[in-house]
Amino acid sequence: MDKQSLIDCHNRIKPFIHNTPVLTSRLIDEVVGAQLYFKCENFQRMGAFKMRGAANAIMQLTDEQKQNGVVTHSSGNFAQALSLSAKSLSVKAYIVMPSTAPEVKKDAVKGYGGILVECEPNLAARESASQEIVEKYSATFIHPSNDDHVILGQGTACKELLEEQPNLEYVFTPVGGGGLIAGTALSTHYFGSNCRTIGGEPFEVDDAYRSLKSGKLETNTTTNTIADGLKTQLGDRNFPIIQKHVEEIVRVTEADIVAAMRLIWERLKIVCEPSSAVALAAVFKKKNDLNEKKIGVIVSGGNVDFGNLPFK
Amino acid sequence: MDKQSLIDCHNRIKPFIHNTPVLTSRLIDEVVGAQLYFKCENFQRMGAFKMRGAANAIMQLTDEQKQNGVVTHSSGNFAQALSLSAKSLSVKAYIVMPSTAPEVKKDAVKGYGGILVECEPNLAARESASQEIVEKYSATFIHPSNDDHVILGQGTACKELLEEQPNLEYVFTPVGGGGLIAGTALSTHYFGSNCRTIGGEPFEVDDAYRSLKSGKLETNTTTNTIADGLKTQLGDRNFPIIQKHVEEIVRVTEADIVAAMRLIWERLKIVCEPSSAVALAAVFKKKNDLNEKKIGVIVSGGNVDFGNLPFK
Repeated sequence: MDKQSLIDCHNRIKPFIHNTPVLTSRLIDEVVGAQLYFKCENFQRMGAFKMRGAANAIMQLTDEQKQNGVVTHSSGNFAQALSLSAKSLSVKAYIVMPSTAPEVKKDAVKGYGGILVECEPNLAARESASQEIVEKYSATFIHPSNDDHVILGQGTACKELLEEQPNLEYVFTPVGGGGLIAGTALSTHYFGSNCRTIGGEPFEVDDAYRSLKSGKLETNTTTNTIADGLKTQLGDRNFPIIQKHVEEIVRVTEADIVAAMRLIWERLKIVCEPSSAVALAAVFKKKNDLNEKKIGVIVSGGNVDFGNLPFK
Repeated sequence: MDKQSLIDCHNRIKPFIHNTPVLTSRLIDEVVGAQLYFKCENFQRMGAFKMRGAANAIMQLTDEQKQNGVVTHSSGNFAQALSLSAKSLSVKAYIVMPSTAPEVKKDAVKGYGGILVECEPNLAARESASQEIVEKYSATFIHPSNDDHVILGQGTACKELLEEQPNLEYVFTPVGGGGLIAGTALSTHYFGSNCRTIGGEPFEVDDAYRSLKSGKLETNTTTNTIADGLKTQLGDRNFPIIQKHVEEIVRVTEADIVAAMRLIWERLKIVCEPSSAVALAAVFKKKNDLNEKKIGVIVSGGNVDFGNLPFK
């Protein structure tokens, strides 16, 4: 994945995405002792950066593949992103979701035009349901994070950020399935001026941290985190990019995440997901090394369960 | 207060305020059946439109008056707005606040450089404490809403909105002390093209609704509303403007307010105060008359008590 492939990807998806705003907060800058630039993907279409990768992946298909539709299994933002991108491109999207998923998530997928396929709530059932659809309709399976086109698409958020703030010295992102941080690391590498990518990851799902230490893909045994978008694991497509281009993964506690989330809501006056706050929580952890630096923070999304907020 | 006075006011305060963004939501438009343009004063400095009027009022003072400082009594956004405006203009601001006010509000005033003066928690004590400061320091009292310079300042939010969207047919604002709606009504009158101002007001504090009906200033006996910024009452400076230029005041229930607030948070991905949501709640009440119209909504502020959110 070279520089040109990122440029081409960005040009390709531009009609289908927003160039989201970059916000700043004098108070947060004072507290951190650095200049922070928040790239607000919570304002992205369907409320998260996932729209970028989904759109790019579908646009890469042949006409015949588009005719047959796409399929993924996700109960999170990628399900909505694939549904909406597919609809924008007049392609069918089959979304495999556990029958136990919240009705609000099922409704969101249907609202964006996705075809909901329910299955038993376990990974084997999700995979076999997806496989069935691939076989039955000749649909193309698109992975939410471990796919080159998805990775490139997610990297365009950081590309836009660097177009607006070319002198950033660091960009922080949350780490879940690895698509966003891998794409971001490619963008800082190709478009930054000595700009480094750092990931934030909850202690509860620290597969990326451990994978970087051990040099091989590690798995999570617990997923007890408020950052529900980060419960997924790295894959063989994004891990080598992360190994090569990511400076460090910083782990944060659940309390760190809630405190950072509250600061974003209170000071930037925006709604972000707990997963997004993990990036700012990591900035706080690294505070002593960041004095006076110019730092980008990817606010990954804003789809929140308002019936279950963590503030007291 | 003529057209030129609004233009002069806007030019005067521009260096001290943000021209806040205007956001839209496809889903909210679909639900209302109209095109809504949200003027996001929650992104204003100190988090609310009050910054505009406070800055204008201070800038109108003579050098000698500036030397002696300003005073107001408020435990809400105007306290912070006057503190921050005064600080930006190197003027002392004395803020009279009941001793029972939440520590977070006292801290906010002190954080913005205001001089906190605590008093007993009743109106008489607030007024006499303010009067004492006026006498002792020759400070100038500035009312949070019933002051011509404050009214003009608040009107600049709508002026900016109309510069961006000149063809609005209605602008909705919340109604509390009356400064925002009076200023807005002046702006729609002078800068709109047959654009009308409508106010939203909680049933619980419907003095403006009743005042317009009776033709004289009415008072509130209950103030049991979540919209804590709207508990204040109209005054003799803004009421005549409201009588002349406001089309209608629409009353909304507490449940209407919470539903509108949630919609703004969920769909626009921004944090707004309950008071702000009153304007959107009023739009919903008038839905049947607004088919296909272009409507401005002033999102008045974003200072929220996160420990006490109304979502379930």
